[in-house]
Amino acid sequence: MKLTHKAAGAARHLAPAPVVVLCRPQLGENVGTTARAMLNFGLTELRLVSPECGWPNAKAVVACSGAYAVLNGIRLFDTVEQAVADLHHVYATTARARELKKPIVTAEAAVRETRQAMAEERKVGFLFGAERTGLTNEELLLADAVLSIPLNPDFSSLNLAQAVLLLSYEWFKSGDATPAVRAARKEGEPATKAEVDGLLGQLVDSLDVVDFFKSADRRQGLVRTIKVMIERRSWTRPEIHLFRGIVKELSQGGRR
Amino acid sequence: MKLTHKAAGAARHLAPAPVVVLCRPQLGENVGTTARAMLNFGLTELRLVSPECGWPNAKAVVACSGAYAVLNGIRLFDTVEQAVADLHHVYATTARARELKKPIVTAEAAVRETRQAMAEERKVGFLFGAERTGLTNEELLLADAVLSIPLNPDFSSLNLAQAVLLLSYEWFKSGDATPAVRAARKEGEPATKAEVDGLLGQLVDSLDVVDFFKSADRRQGLVRTIKVMIERRSWTRPEIHLFRGIVKELSQGGRR
Repeated sequence: MKLTHKAAGAARHLAPAPVVVLCRPQLGENVGTTARAMLNFGLTELRLVSPECGWPNAKAVVACSGAYAVLNGIRLFDTVEQAVADLHHVYATTARARELKKPIVTAEAAVRETRQAMAEERKVGFLFGAERTGLTNEELLLADAVLSIPLNPDFSSLNLAQAVLLLSYEWFKSGDATPAVRAARKEGEPATKAEVDGLLGQLVDSLDVVDFFKSADRRQGLVRTIKVMIERRSWTRPEIHLFRGIVKELSQGGRR
Repeated sequence: MKLTHKAAGAARHLAPAPVVVLCRPQLGENVGTTARAMLNFGLTELRLVSPECGWPNAKAVVACSGAYAVLNGIRLFDTVEQAVADLHHVYATTARARELKKPIVTAEAAVRETRQAMAEERKVGFLFGAERTGLTNEELLLADAVLSIPLNPDFSSLNLAQAVLLLSYEWFKSGDATPAVRAARKEGEPATKAEVDGLLGQLVDSLDVVDFFKSADRRQGLVRTIKVMIERRSWTRPEIHLFRGIVKELSQGGRR
C-alpha cells in the first residue's frame, strides 16, 4: 500500500530517525501539519493506520507546507499491529493518566532511549491516537512504554501536530551540536590587555587633570572601581580607539 | 488599551513566567494558537504590537481553544519600544541568520538565563515578528540576545505558534520536576528474593525430572543461565505465584 511517489531530496541526507505512526487520524490537515512538524526536525517516516480522513488527502497536501519528503513517503496500514510489525521498540503517546502498567517517560527520556536503541540497530516508533479519542487500550497494550509530556494541569490542550512537534524537536536537539550560547559577533579584533591599559591610563590622567578624585584616598578606591568596570568588559580594538577619542575630546572641552 | 475582561482562573495559580510579544501579527488565528501554546506551558502574559489582524479578533477567540486566561489578558501597544519598556531583558526570535552583533542562544539556554534573571526580580520578554517578514532590524536592535531554534537546514518551516510552543515547552520543562522515567505500575507486591529462589528451585527440580540438562556439565552452565534470566527481572508476588503454577502444570503434563 506504499504510495509510489519518490521522497523529495530533503529526506535523503537525513540521519535515521524514529517512525511516527498516526492511528485513525480524523483530519487531513493534521496529517499535513504532522508531516511539516516532523520534517522541521529531520523525521521523515510517517505511517497511517486506517485514516478516517481518507488517503490521499488534498487538505494534508496543503497543510504540509511543502513537507513532501514526508508526505510522499507515507505508508498506509489496516491495523496498528501491521504498522509496528517491523519495529523493536514502540512508545505510545497519551495525555490522559490511566492505570498503565508500563513505564511513563518524558520526551527527553524517550529520545535518549531511542538513540540508544537505534545505535543497537533497533527500529523505534511512536504511536499517536485519533484527535478526539487518543489511543485505544488495545493500541496502548502494543507499546513498550508511554510518552507523556508534562503540561499545565489547568490547561492541557496540545493538538496532534504539536505533540509530534515536541517529540521531533527533542529528537533533533538530542543529536544536534549547536552550542547553547553563541557569542555575539564583534566588530573588529578584540583589544589586547595593553590597549585596554592604555585607555585606562589616559582616562585616569584626564580625570587627574580635572581633579575628579579630590583626595588621594578617594582616588585609590575610584581608580580601582574604574579599572574593574573597564576591564571586566571585552572590548574590540575599534571600541578602545573610539573610547580614547571620547576621553580626549571631553578632557579638551573641559580645559577650554 | 488593556482589554478589561478578567483573566480566567487558570492563570492565577501559575508561577511568574516570561512575557511574549508579537510584533504586527497578520492573522488572528495565529494570535489564538499562540495563546493556546503558551497556556499549555504556563505562560500567560501576551502583548501585541500594532496587530495587522486587528484587535479584538474573532478568529483568535476560536483558535485559542479556550485559552482565555491568556487571550483576555492581552495588552496592546503601538510600538515595540512601549511593549518592552518595563522589561529588563529581551530576546528576539529569528529564523534567519543575519549579521547580528548579539549573542545567539538556544531555547534551552534562553529559559535557563530567564529563570536566573527572574530569580533576581528582572522581567524578561520574547519578541516574535510578523508571520511573513519576521522581526525588522530595528526590532532586533531592541533585544539583548537572539533566540534561534536549530532546525533541519533543508526544511525550516516553523509557524509563529509553533515557535512560541517550543519556547513555552522549554520554559515549563525547566521548572518541572516530572521524573524522566516513571516506573511501570506493578500489579501486587514485589516478590522477595526467597520467593524468587523458591520458583528457581521448583523450576530446576522439574527440569531435572524430565532430564532437561542431559549431563552434569551442561546442567551447571544452564542452571546459571536460568538463574540470571529469572533473577535479573523484578517480579511481583502474583507473577511468581502464576509462574510456579505454570511450571507445576507443565511438569505434571510431561509426566502424564
